[in-house]
Amino acid sequence: MSAQQSSADASSDLSDLRYRMRHSAAHVMAEAVMKLFPEAQIAIGPPTDDGFYYDFEVSRPFTPEDLEKIEALMRKTVKADTPFSGVTLSREAALDRFKDQKFKIELITDLPEDEEITVWSHESWEDLCAGRHAESTGKIGAFKLLSVAGAYWRGDENREMLQRIYGTAWETGEALEAYLDRIEEAERRDHRRLGRELGLFFFDPIAPASPFFLPKGTIVLNELIDFVKELYVKYGYQEVMTPQIFNTDLWKQSGHYDNYLDNMYMINVDEREFGVKPMNCPAAAMLYAANTHSYRELPIRYADFGRLHRYERSGVTHGLMRVRTFVQDDAHIFATLDQIAQEVNSFIAMLDEAYTILGFGEFRMALSLRPDKRVGTDEMWDRAEAGLTEVLDASGRKYDLEEGEGAFYGPKIDFFVPDALGREWQLGTVQLDFSLPERFNLQYAAEDGSLQPPVVIHRAMLGSLERFLGVLIEHTAGALPLWLSPVQATLIPIADRHIPFGQEVVEKLRAVGVRAEVNDGNDRMGAKIRAAQGQKIPYMLVVGDREQEANKVAVRERSGGELGAVDVDDFVARVVEEIATRA
Amino acid sequence: MSAQQSSADASSDLSDLRYRMRHSAAHVMAEAVMKLFPEAQIAIGPPTDDGFYYDFEVSRPFTPEDLEKIEALMRKTVKADTPFSGVTLSREAALDRFKDQKFKIELITDLPEDEEITVWSHESWEDLCAGRHAESTGKIGAFKLLSVAGAYWRGDENREMLQRIYGTAWETGEALEAYLDRIEEAERRDHRRLGRELGLFFFDPIAPASPFFLPKGTIVLNELIDFVKELYVKYGYQEVMTPQIFNTDLWKQSGHYDNYLDNMYMINVDEREFGVKPMNCPAAAMLYAANTHSYRELPIRYADFGRLHRYERSGVTHGLMRVRTFVQDDAHIFATLDQIAQEVNSFIAMLDEAYTILGFGEFRMALSLRPDKRVGTDEMWDRAEAGLTEVLDASGRKYDLEEGEGAFYGPKIDFFVPDALGREWQLGTVQLDFSLPERFNLQYAAEDGSLQPPVVIHRAMLGSLERFLGVLIEHTAGALPLWLSPVQATLIPIADRHIPFGQEVVEKLRAVGVRAEVNDGNDRMGAKIRAAQGQKIPYMLVVGDREQEANKVAVRERSGGELGAVDVDDFVARVVEEIATRA
Repeated sequence: MSAQQSSADASSDLSDLRYRMRHSAAHVMAEAVMKLFPEAQIAIGPPTDDGFYYDFEVSRPFTPEDLEKIEALMRKTVKADTPFSGVTLSREAALDRFKDQKFKIELITDLPEDEEITVWSHESWEDLCAGRHAESTGKIGAFKLLSVAGAYWRGDENREMLQRIYGTAWETGEALEAYLDRIEEAERRDHRRLGRELGLFFFDPIAPASPFFLPKGTIVLNELIDFVKELYVKYGYQEVMTPQIFNTDLWKQSGHYDNYLDNMYMINVDEREFGVKPMNCPAAAMLYAANTHSYRELPIRYADFGRLHRYERSGVTHGLMRVRTFVQDDAHIFATLDQIAQEVNSFIAMLDEAYTILGFGEFRMALSLRPDKRVGTDEMWDRAEAGLTEVLDASGRKYDLEEGEGAFYGPKIDFFVPDALGREWQLGTVQLDFSLPERFNLQYAAEDGSLQPPVVIHRAMLGSLERFLGVLIEHTAGALPLWLSPVQATLIPIADRHIPFGQEVVEKLRAVGVRAEVNDGNDRMGAKIRAAQGQKIPYMLVVGDREQEANKVAVRERSGGELGAVDVDDFVARVVEEIATRA
Repeated sequence: MSAQQSSADASSDLSDLRYRMRHSAAHVMAEAVMKLFPEAQIAIGPPTDDGFYYDFEVSRPFTPEDLEKIEALMRKTVKADTPFSGVTLSREAALDRFKDQKFKIELITDLPEDEEITVWSHESWEDLCAGRHAESTGKIGAFKLLSVAGAYWRGDENREMLQRIYGTAWETGEALEAYLDRIEEAERRDHRRLGRELGLFFFDPIAPASPFFLPKGTIVLNELIDFVKELYVKYGYQEVMTPQIFNTDLWKQSGHYDNYLDNMYMINVDEREFGVKPMNCPAAAMLYAANTHSYRELPIRYADFGRLHRYERSGVTHGLMRVRTFVQDDAHIFATLDQIAQEVNSFIAMLDEAYTILGFGEFRMALSLRPDKRVGTDEMWDRAEAGLTEVLDASGRKYDLEEGEGAFYGPKIDFFVPDALGREWQLGTVQLDFSLPERFNLQYAAEDGSLQPPVVIHRAMLGSLERFLGVLIEHTAGALPLWLSPVQATLIPIADRHIPFGQEVVEKLRAVGVRAEVNDGNDRMGAKIRAAQGQKIPYMLVVGDREQEANKVAVRERSGGELGAVDVDDFVARVVEEIATRA
């Protein structure tokens, strides 16, 4: 579920430089805040992937004017070009040095006995800090303060609510400008804003982090599901439907009770404890175990679009990207060890087909190998890792190797795609599991008559469909591919007398399954075209006297392109073909 | 959710006769049990729609031999033809009379102060009973004891587990025989047994009353959903998707907290109380309220296949007929008062279309009018009832009128279908609701600019899809219509050398979406045909040398009919047509 953002850094040197600049900028910012708000309690202020922040407790909210003043003071300090230097202190000295700063006192108190305590300073300002700064304040580069947001001390909802000032710093003015352009573009593409504007979905505190999908959003999700189902038919999957609420005996058997309870919703029924499913795996195991199986039946591929619920703290939920309820294109494959390679291969082929059609032409793969703590014999791991390696090598694609990063139950391959902003998202995964068959005593009758455990392969291409929709909206800036668009064509009559002909055209489109509508409102043509472009409707069909007489429509694309007057039947055929092929 | 079984009785006289016979048979049975088990504690023994039962506490389980002995003793009593007679007793006398019978003592103690206490007797045996018996034991008619089952005293899981003996009694031997044939047929058609045999679904105590759908059952449910979705496109519905878990503030606003809490699953999240949705209505209201609406947009029809959860006591759940989790073909229509008639009319047309295709050619309608306790003005009720009456009258169909049986929030029409066994099931419903718009402050801008509340129309055609599947399985004895069949055609090669040609034929069928498979197992042809018939597969395609040479298949129907050798392409075209038209 978590977005993984790749570093855009070209080298680890650049990465180190930026770390030092941003870390230093955070100190300089805190110094400036304390000059303006001497009573401020300062918390922590680390560098981040694209900037820095610092958390403060002050008597009133920061205003935009405050940020300007803080930035101005920072520029003075940068100009002064004072060196950063660090010293080691005893615990007592440190507690005395920060005696007026309650958060620092708490941090010092919580440090392990044998931890070395260092303080870094520039000018006369000093901070409790492990170091790694620029040489001097003059080396902070091009920086800018960006925004203020609330943040709990130590991320704990029961502690103080602080104010976090975000800023960014880059090695050159150009790099800063490029970054500011990127965040402006990211805001323009923010799926939460577009979701509202395009009438796709909304959120309400009555069901926190649980999207309500309006008709248009539901169309997109259903199209995605239908698309995946088509691939399932082609690749030999069988869909199943399983319950959502299970007695905790199941979650104890599966290991979720020991490892995942904090993220589960629990219910008492008839004085027994039940849990709402956060994953489909145990239900898939129960389906498998409901019948006996022979090696001849394997592999069995059970696909389950079951709705999942996972508790996430309100601080970490984010639009569709991190929700508390979602559906996955989830499936579990029950196979023999010998079938692992063919199954993974087939999955990668299916995933490649899906990603290409969905507009993610390239993807990165990372193979995660056995961790220290694991189940299963070395021989099993050898075989499974060899199987995955063989498939990846045969694929001719590059992949990254992550030693020790596999799940405790088996090795896995994760799939990452870059979006239009250069951010990278983990979508797909394929994981081998030797533990589930053991926990659920799954078996098949092998060719020699012996009972053997199958291996379980967990796999998803898109992952959470909710999150995938969020990624897709940001990737396309809301201009979804034709086949996914809630409205595929809007007919714009130039005058009211063209409405009946327009309706005829729309009926023709609808009769063949195209989602089309007539805009018979009172706006002028220009306004209707702008509205359609704003709604990212792929085709606008303008109809006036000339078009009507010739049984044509003047076709405009949302991108601005004009196809001119096209015969109605030709247009219908063209759009049907485009939708059918998901071109 | 509850099955409504119509009485098969031709007249209320016959109904009264059967009541008296069965009630009397229950007494005679209890007398016989006490002769055989003098220490028995007797509970209650009423007549039912098709027989009678009596609950007993005895030291050991009843055996089939016990039932034979009990029946033999009953026959003696019937032959003796002793009259039934009743007397009124004081509370003290009654407590004394039944001093050895703890359940009777409890019943007497719980009777209201002013209740008249009567005792009815035959021979020397007497029972606490309000009366309504046959004249004498000789008038009990043709009877038979059927089975024994466990039953909690007063239906309370925390009280004594008793043994219930079921019997039946009819006015003639023929009526008894006809009834026994019917229950044998019902057992043959039991959807729980067929569900297992046909590989459709199963239950497990780990998720009580929550079906696990295997691939074949999932195909049927998905076909039903797709069918309903097609009708939704035709009749102008928009599908939406809403969360499942809501803060109880929502359930307080909707009235569920006050009226439905016992049937809801509650969860604590972040120290606040949440409820899992038992109905979609409040979420539909929230979707409507998320935007402003003008009269021009109405009616708005939101369809929601959201999974619902309702707690039902384990004693009342039954296969798919009464479960704890299900999906409905549920929709909520937001309309003006003037649109009620057209909307209900359109719904009945859609329902008629759906039922006909699903093999329920006729249905009965019942209009339920204003109850004493209700919301809304008389003028609103007048208009709504007049609207429904007008639609029903115009439909030219008969309907029953149920005065005072409407919901507190509006009048409703329920739709009943008879199944192949003559049992009647309530499937569809359409309900007008004046309360929900008020509770959620729903509005639309009327033509005159004023803000008006829309009326909400709750409607479902099939109701719970799980339950509908159960009804359909019993109605068809598992022989689902072709378009719903999980496997639509099975190809049976006479010898192994015919397998490749058989696979070619199956590939042709699959390419056009027909669910077909080759039975390439080792069984002989006759066994394969019987297996296919047992699995209720609509078409068996037998292929030998002659068929292969002529590019034909020998087509057999599951009903036993033979279509002879049919050209492969002709058969493909025929089956595609049959599926597409849901013939």
